Amino acid sequence: MATSPNSPTLRSWIDIRPESDFPIQNLPFGVFETDERGPHLGVAIGGYVFDLYAASQFGFFEDLEELGDTQPKVFRRRSLNAFLRLGRPAWRAVRQRVSELLRHDEPRLRDNELAVRDCLLRQTDVRMLRPVKPANYTDFYSSIEHATNVGTMFRDPANALLPNWRHLPIGYHGRTSSIVVSGTSIHRPNGQRKAPDEAAPTFGPSRQLDFELEMAFVVGTGTALGSTVSIDAAEDHIFGLCLFNDWSARDLQSWEYVPLGPFLAKNFGSSIAPWVVTLDALEPFRLAGPTQEPTPLPYLAQTGAHNFDVHLEIALTPAEGPETTISRTNFGLMYWSMAQQLTHHASNGCNLEAGDLYASGTISGPTPDSLGSMLELAWRGTRPLPLADGSERKFLLDGDTVIMRGYAEKEGVRIGFGEVRGTVLPAI
Amino acid sequence: MATSPNSPTLRSWIDIRPESDFPIQNLPFGVFETDERGPHLGVAIGGYVFDLYAASQFGFFEDLEELGDTQPKVFRRRSLNAFLRLGRPAWRAVRQRVSELLRHDEPRLRDNELAVRDCLLRQTDVRMLRPVKPANYTDFYSSIEHATNVGTMFRDPANALLPNWRHLPIGYHGRTSSIVVSGTSIHRPNGQRKAPDEAAPTFGPSRQLDFELEMAFVVGTGTALGSTVSIDAAEDHIFGLCLFNDWSARDLQSWEYVPLGPFLAKNFGSSIAPWVVTLDALEPFRLAGPTQEPTPLPYLAQTGAHNFDVHLEIALTPAEGPETTISRTNFGLMYWSMAQQLTHHASNGCNLEAGDLYASGTISGPTPDSLGSMLELAWRGTRPLPLADGSERKFLLDGDTVIMRGYAEKEGVRIGFGEVRGTVLPAI
Repeated sequence: MATSPNSPTLRSWIDIRPESDFPIQNLPFGVFETDERGPHLGVAIGGYVFDLYAASQFGFFEDLEELGDTQPKVFRRRSLNAFLRLGRPAWRAVRQRVSELLRHDEPRLRDNELAVRDCLLRQTDVRMLRPVKPANYTDFYSSIEHATNVGTMFRDPANALLPNWRHLPIGYHGRTSSIVVSGTSIHRPNGQRKAPDEAAPTFGPSRQLDFELEMAFVVGTGTALGSTVSIDAAEDHIFGLCLFNDWSARDLQSWEYVPLGPFLAKNFGSSIAPWVVTLDALEPFRLAGPTQEPTPLPYLAQTGAHNFDVHLEIALTPAEGPETTISRTNFGLMYWSMAQQLTHHASNGCNLEAGDLYASGTISGPTPDSLGSMLELAWRGTRPLPLADGSERKFLLDGDTVIMRGYAEKEGVRIGFGEVRGTVLPAI
Repeated sequence: MATSPNSPTLRSWIDIRPESDFPIQNLPFGVFETDERGPHLGVAIGGYVFDLYAASQFGFFEDLEELGDTQPKVFRRRSLNAFLRLGRPAWRAVRQRVSELLRHDEPRLRDNELAVRDCLLRQTDVRMLRPVKPANYTDFYSSIEHATNVGTMFRDPANALLPNWRHLPIGYHGRTSSIVVSGTSIHRPNGQRKAPDEAAPTFGPSRQLDFELEMAFVVGTGTALGSTVSIDAAEDHIFGLCLFNDWSARDLQSWEYVPLGPFLAKNFGSSIAPWVVTLDALEPFRLAGPTQEPTPLPYLAQTGAHNFDVHLEIALTPAEGPETTISRTNFGLMYWSMAQQLTHHASNGCNLEAGDLYASGTISGPTPDSLGSMLELAWRGTRPLPLADGSERKFLLDGDTVIMRGYAEKEGVRIGFGEVRGTVLPAI
């Protein structure tokens, strides 16, 4: 039997720094291009991108029946979507094969100088693209700490959680067109805002620009309209996870969101990390989520470990000055699991599509230094957040760069998510 | 100068019944297939579909520079999207040419028996497909009568309109995957619902399934992220309009929608008519919308006629029994114009994409027989709606078919939208 690509004993013939996000046990998927090639699908390994298209040209995948007659063209695409449609057997076969090719004791690629030169590119030499063309994008609201904080600030501290919150994973549809890859700068949005003490709204640059630390999962295999997904089958549809920043304009949001939800406060831009870490790679990092009380209705009831122990952090770098880590939290805290989100989403017959993105909602922890948005970190502007350069923030300033990072770690193996990064540009 | 394709004096050599939705002045675009051909783009004329791909094979468009080198392949697609990306000069050139080919005094197609046989198919012999692959879908809430009715029923009759409503076109993002073409049946959704007198939610088939009469506009030419669209330029981006039914499960909606808006109450299915009537064809039917008070902020302020006088009606046919017309209203009543919706949507830098759908929200008139949803027609179940077969409805029953139709009429010319039709199937 083949060695699991997750085995902690695996080593690569590629020199990988111990603190790298991309050891041989990770092998996340993305899409890249250079001036000379691409866009191609690639896999991250140490400081390199393994070019799946180039590798397929060398015949390294030609015996993989799971790919059918799709290669090499499935690897020469601007998004993972076509690859996602092939299903988990294909995802697993490719990851397994890439793992084999990169193992220290496997000479097939290692000793083929021409292939090594063509298949491995330094990450600093490529441009990463948006990994998926989002077919649909849903944003959930699944951190009980975040929902409680928002309810406390904006509604009633005594009844911070709304009556429906513990019964279903609250979510809403977002905009796909404005989802951009990490590194893309975001203009501060203009919009209508009206403070409580103002008689009428005005239009202008948002005064309360914020980020939201989220994880998004990518759906690989879709469903037909009118069909549902049982809670036990939900994870079968999930290809992998990535970091996600749901930029938010709080002043626009509070004026517009009743009764139909957030709209222009969100759709000016969302940032996605370039690397999608497969659910397979995250298997060793499962943990049980918080106890759910009341017990969810039967269609959402699950037992076992369906959360994932992913350490997360947020850093902020001003236009000039050093980076400050402003929050550390964990994805494992989420009240509603990804499986519950997906099963709920499909429970009314809504069809899933390959390339769908489902974001978690802001991931906040229980302590003041583990909150996932500036709104919460500076508590609606009432406790400004100090930065390393001596300045402080209530909300984001033009020139600020927000960086989110994450990793899972166990038995000496550290699976990282890379980062999602974006700089705030002035309003146009 | 070429005769306008909108001229009331135009006649076709095709025999068209006077009550047809598709006189030569209309020429709406859609996508069809048969067992032998397609999917191809087509134009409706009388009881026929004019096959644009077949026509391009006969060389009828070969001198149209606006199409560049895209033909014939742009006409052999599963959606209008690629054609939309060509922009208004191409849309206009094709409509103008089709108009010329179909005129009674133009022999070029008329006298070419082979071409006539190949380019014209009876509508009863083709299957119409979803006209666009929706890139993004936004649903607005732009009828003041509808918003007032909902606010009266669910909130406070004395303050039925929320404070933001007259300041901006309220909207939210919807789900694209479940937008289906007219004729597709819709399963009654299951979901969580909790009546006020119930202690906890239960999961099961919606007991308050409803329709919403809407018009959707299709964006032809997109914008870049970070750019905006001035109110005067907004209509340049609009390709055309079609009928739209935003099926809604009111019991799911009232339980889930606070605070992030409608979600599973809507995304189990939305129905779109197969024919997109171009904005060009609707030019003669412009009218000014209602007076807006207070005057919108400058970025939304517009003068002139930016609404469209489109008569709309809703019919309901039970599983067995005759059709009953249950509502008659007009699209010209909408408080917020399409141009205002589009400009607002882009005002924060959100990018538009070819194939975007923007639905109007429920179109209700001022009288009890002009309401656009069953919720309003039966006033939350308090005044059941009588049907021609002697039965009555508070909400939709399994087996009910909802049909929405619309047309504009002036100077003896009647531009119809066809219909959007869907039958309710039992919950799975």
